[in-house]
Amino acid sequence: MKSFGSDNHAGAHPDVLAAVVEADKGQALPYGDDATTAEAVRLVRRHFGEKAEVLFALNGTGANVIGLQAMTRSFEAIIAAESAHINVDECGAPEKFLGSKIVDVPVLGGKLTPTLVERASFGTGDPHHVQARVVSIANSTELGTVYSLEEIREIADHAHAHGMLLHLDGARLANAAVSLGVDVGELGTGVGVDVLTFGGTKNGALGAEAVVVLNEDLVAAMPYIRKQSMQLASKMRYVSAQFVALLTDDLWKRNAEHANAMARRLADGVEGVPGVTVTDTVAANAVFAILPPEVTRELQDEFTFYVWNPGTGQVRWMTSWATTEAQVDEFVGRIREVAGKHAGH
Amino acid sequence: MKSFGSDNHAGAHPDVLAAVVEADKGQALPYGDDATTAEAVRLVRRHFGEKAEVLFALNGTGANVIGLQAMTRSFEAIIAAESAHINVDECGAPEKFLGSKIVDVPVLGGKLTPTLVERASFGTGDPHHVQARVVSIANSTELGTVYSLEEIREIADHAHAHGMLLHLDGARLANAAVSLGVDVGELGTGVGVDVLTFGGTKNGALGAEAVVVLNEDLVAAMPYIRKQSMQLASKMRYVSAQFVALLTDDLWKRNAEHANAMARRLADGVEGVPGVTVTDTVAANAVFAILPPEVTRELQDEFTFYVWNPGTGQVRWMTSWATTEAQVDEFVGRIREVAGKHAGH
Amino acid sequence: MKSFGSDNHAGAHPDVLAAVVEADKGQALPYGDDATTAEAVRLVRRHFGEKAEVLFALNGTGANVIGLQAMTRSFEAIIAAESAHINVDECGAPEKFLGSKIVDVPVLGGKLTPTLVERASFGTGDPHHVQARVVSIANSTELGTVYSLEEIREIADHAHAHGMLLHLDGARLANAAVSLGVDVGELGTGVGVDVLTFGGTKNGALGAEAVVVLNEDLVAAMPYIRKQSMQLASKMRYVSAQFVALLTDDLWKRNAEHANAMARRLADGVEGVPGVTVTDTVAANAVFAILPPEVTRELQDEFTFYVWNPGTGQVRWMTSWATTEAQVDEFVGRIREVAGKHAGH
Amino acid sequence: MKSFGSDNHAGAHPDVLAAVVEADKGQALPYGDDATTAEAVRLVRRHFGEKAEVLFALNGTGANVIGLQAMTRSFEAIIAAESAHINVDECGAPEKFLGSKIVDVPVLGGKLTPTLVERASFGTGDPHHVQARVVSIANSTELGTVYSLEEIREIADHAHAHGMLLHLDGARLANAAVSLGVDVGELGTGVGVDVLTFGGTKNGALGAEAVVVLNEDLVAAMPYIRKQSMQLASKMRYVSAQFVALLTDDLWKRNAEHANAMARRLADGVEGVPGVTVTDTVAANAVFAILPPEVTRELQDEFTFYVWNPGTGQVRWMTSWATTEAQVDEFVGRIREVAGKHAGH
Repeated sequence: MKSFGSDNHAGAHPDVLAAVVEADKGQALPYGDDATTAEAVRLVRRHFGEKAEVLFALNGTGANVIGLQAMTRSFEAIIAAESAHINVDECGAPEKFLGSKIVDVPVLGGKLTPTLVERASFGTGDPHHVQARVVSIANSTELGTVYSLEEIREIADHAHAHGMLLHLDGARLANAAVSLGVDVGELGTGVGVDVLTFGGTKNGALGAEAVVVLNEDLVAAMPYIRKQSMQLASKMRYVSAQFVALLTDDLWKRNAEHANAMARRLADGVEGVPGVTVTDTVAANAVFAILPPEVTRELQDEFTFYVWNPGTGQVRWMTSWATTEAQVDEFVGRIREVAGKHAGH
Repeated sequence: MKSFGSDNHAGAHPDVLAAVVEADKGQALPYGDDATTAEAVRLVRRHFGEKAEVLFALNGTGANVIGLQAMTRSFEAIIAAESAHINVDECGAPEKFLGSKIVDVPVLGGKLTPTLVERASFGTGDPHHVQARVVSIANSTELGTVYSLEEIREIADHAHAHGMLLHLDGARLANAAVSLGVDVGELGTGVGVDVLTFGGTKNGALGAEAVVVLNEDLVAAMPYIRKQSMQLASKMRYVSAQFVALLTDDLWKRNAEHANAMARRLADGVEGVPGVTVTDTVAANAVFAILPPEVTRELQDEFTFYVWNPGTGQVRWMTSWATTEAQVDEFVGRIREVAGKHAGH
Repeated sequence: MKSFGSDNHAGAHPDVLAAVVEADKGQALPYGDDATTAEAVRLVRRHFGEKAEVLFALNGTGANVIGLQAMTRSFEAIIAAESAHINVDECGAPEKFLGSKIVDVPVLGGKLTPTLVERASFGTGDPHHVQARVVSIANSTELGTVYSLEEIREIADHAHAHGMLLHLDGARLANAAVSLGVDVGELGTGVGVDVLTFGGTKNGALGAEAVVVLNEDLVAAMPYIRKQSMQLASKMRYVSAQFVALLTDDLWKRNAEHANAMARRLADGVEGVPGVTVTDTVAANAVFAILPPEVTRELQDEFTFYVWNPGTGQVRWMTSWATTEAQVDEFVGRIREVAGKHAGH
Repeated sequence: MKSFGSDNHAGAHPDVLAAVVEADKGQALPYGDDATTAEAVRLVRRHFGEKAEVLFALNGTGANVIGLQAMTRSFEAIIAAESAHINVDECGAPEKFLGSKIVDVPVLGGKLTPTLVERASFGTGDPHHVQARVVSIANSTELGTVYSLEEIREIADHAHAHGMLLHLDGARLANAAVSLGVDVGELGTGVGVDVLTFGGTKNGALGAEAVVVLNEDLVAAMPYIRKQSMQLASKMRYVSAQFVALLTDDLWKRNAEHANAMARRLADGVEGVPGVTVTDTVAANAVFAILPPEVTRELQDEFTFYVWNPGTGQVRWMTSWATTEAQVDEFVGRIREVAGKHAGH
């Protein structure tokens, strides 16, 4: 399989697997009352601060939902980009579990701004309207773009000034951090994020996400919310161990740097190829490009990747910690070949 | 740590860990569209039949909820034993996610009967009452007892005759099967179960459950229910691989047989010890016993186990695939010693 | 129709109908921003205090659910008597709308006590358990009994001492008040109730309930909760007008006194009738009695009333503001006749 | 009060009030088992056909939610116009109660088309996406426009051809019917609507809506859904009586014709007024117009009406069964005066 389909097509990093095997030492208390989990929490707090509440969860949808559940009552709404994972890729889990409306905002490049949030927050104080309560952003975004620290801070300030909270879907938080050259913790702590997901799965884990709660008012309910949301692992140590690995010797950073570099290499490689246009800033580990449909079809015979927008012919290519330079180069070579052939007609 | 606290205090079986490592070969499609998952489904179907729909889930609460969600509308109720895991140990996840009432029935030994179900199913046709729709049983039960094939069939027949469905929480299905000397599949297929959970976690996995849907009418909605319930793993192969291991060379069976034998050994060991009374049939991997509180307290200094009923002094001792004869013998020795000492006063 | 089936078999009091017609004067703002509603709120506050928040709702189930919704998060549980309306007569609306579990407690005479509440509130701090948050009582109860001021205060004190809140289902609050000889407001304000329903429908209205919020912390969310719970009337004045009538010239009190007196008259009338045993204290407007099934059947040919417990032959007879002495006397006469005839065998 | 703010600022028609008083004759069975309700159902069926299931509900939001609840599971989505009442004016009740996502579509004039529905129904068969299940339209729309029979039939055909159902929010169904010159029943029966709300409140009732279920498969669950959704009236006869009045001697039709005529008179009256532009087809009882903000402000000192779009200065003027020609003429006169004055500057 030759896949640029998603960063979850990759396997787990060997260090993660080793940590999982390592965690398997005799008996341990379940549900997070074990030494491995304590160590993983300690390591997450090194990045997000000592006051950060850390809860490991089982997948990205679950992590998002338990974070959002802590922040909303059912008559309160979540403002998100139309392209947000919580809006289009979670089969309505937020609406189901929170009972809340997601007010989705059409955006360019996957990013909200205070102005867009403002416009979506109407009807405050009117009982006929849902009450805007949470702004949810993703970093990096579903379009492979990255919010700067300043952009996050501005949205947070706007939210807090209007009685709202800021949620961050960080399924690819590591990719955003290395793109900006900052620590992963800086994307939450200090810039006003109230609750975030720090994704492990796409960063080289088997399946592990951390919910990091930075707003102290929201902490007390979290254990019950996680359990009721079916996100509490029984043998938790095997989840926690994955974060121990990712946060040891900066594995999270090395993995993300590599993934981003591979996206960069791919984008650079297709520059100037006739008929191929990269459409969004390649800031993290995704390349969005418009291709002639016949080129896409021919490439898909050999490589796995998805059409993002059938109307425009836009495709998405994702790289991961495991993507090799050789794989990128082979892919670039074939793109050049196929695109060239069709352009020749 | 010396624990008889729960079967989830044990680690994962080496074969399971090996299978997880084995699954980590290059790229694979996510969400279950991979070869490991196909193999795991094939193996589960060898037990439950070719028509069984198999969906892997992340934990026991999640597996129960997605099964029950497929069977109910929110005005329909679930009849369960008062001691049922879905009633007392899932932080209200079923009520939250289904919007349904659980009609809980006080029972002896954790087991429902058609008569008890009948009595709990009142108000049929009356819009003021929730409508009894699902009977949910656990096998083995939370009290370590086991429903026979005949008992399951009788409840299933009663349920179906009254327009109801039968759900089986099989977090410890393997333990029930080996207790009865039947294949794990016989506890579902052929005895009228509509949906069941086949638990891997307590049987030696890291964290993996299978939802097995035997009623064809319920199949179509399952993928959406699993995703919306936040139970769809991204890198699914690492979940599926655990079932591949458990279902290869009868590991599920060997693990369960061992766990049950250790409980039997423990129950036999404390027979006749002054002040110690085993209260329930030891059919699976749990021993329930009443101890003098001072004996319990002294034993708990050294061994981890839980008081089940503070009123009566009843405690629960669980064994697992990993419990050794030496551990049991050491525990029995200490029980005899401590109980004898206190009885001597 | 000769009905002792329920107090909602009665029509509306003429003063209530007159008030509804009176409210129909030209245009008015909807949703409660009208003069009639302002007047009704003022009148309710005369009983419950100036700080009471008052929201009119459309029916008893709706009023209970919006009160309870203000008091709970989905992982928090409601402790109620097994016989409670919210537990058995609302088709699971609380579970559906709150996502919360109702922990139902078997009680005698429909009444909870601090001891019973204590016993039902286990698992505090344990994320596997729902967290006891609300005690819900009904006054008068479903069994026609009445909590004294002292009894309410004791439950409220217990609840508050344990971080819980007290909810009062007052579908028949007027009947409880006149039974105790106190003002209806005294059953809420001053005895520690946090939120209550003050029922108009069974007290002579067409269909109107008031939710009275006495705990200031819960007030802010109420308008949104009422609207989202589909309990906000468009032309609100016609609902409010009913309370204006009930709270003018003590109509609420006169109606309840009459209903209670009719129940008393009925209970007194059947005293000593062979085979007829009144089972519960007749404190409000209900009489519970055990009758021979053949007597019940023969009486039901002529009179409408319900068997409460088919097992014991217990029946429920309700009286209302509209029940006349003549109706009671006719019913008593027939009971004596039929019971005498069968006793004669 | 001089209001063109909404058709629910009007009172109830005298015939409706008379019918309510008339229904108040002695005792009756509650919850719809009474003669008045039977008569009301019979009258509704005269319009929608003998097979129509008819359930009375308490308000428009409630009626919409119980209809939609019958049509969806939580992973199934509802496609609606962005301006739909269910999307913006029900405080998230559908999301809360159904757990479903509303996929909202920006539209002109409040109307969906098969093409717009098609575009919004992506992701079919993909468990990551909610599954489009219901198209919900309003007739007349929130913009005062009206779907023709042919337009409804086309949407219904598209929906059914794609495994979807058609829901109709008929809070102003009477206004749509008289606008088209058809019977109110023709807007549902025969054109493919599966479930609809037939609104009484805005048509001259105190507060009464009918849910009409035309798809037989959806009927069985309705009584439970209505009760669990807190929309079942206790003394139902007072709700039903309102429909008896509206459906006697074509009161529904006369009321709607009058309301529509008043809107037409208003629209005609402002034609050619400088600075005033009617923006949408005046097909029912609403006039949408753009006014200079200073004209709006001055008019609002005297008349109640709402700004619909602060960005464009668009206002909404609603007429009702109770609006008089004199009121319209006075309003038109003032508009001419004020607009003329400001245009003169």
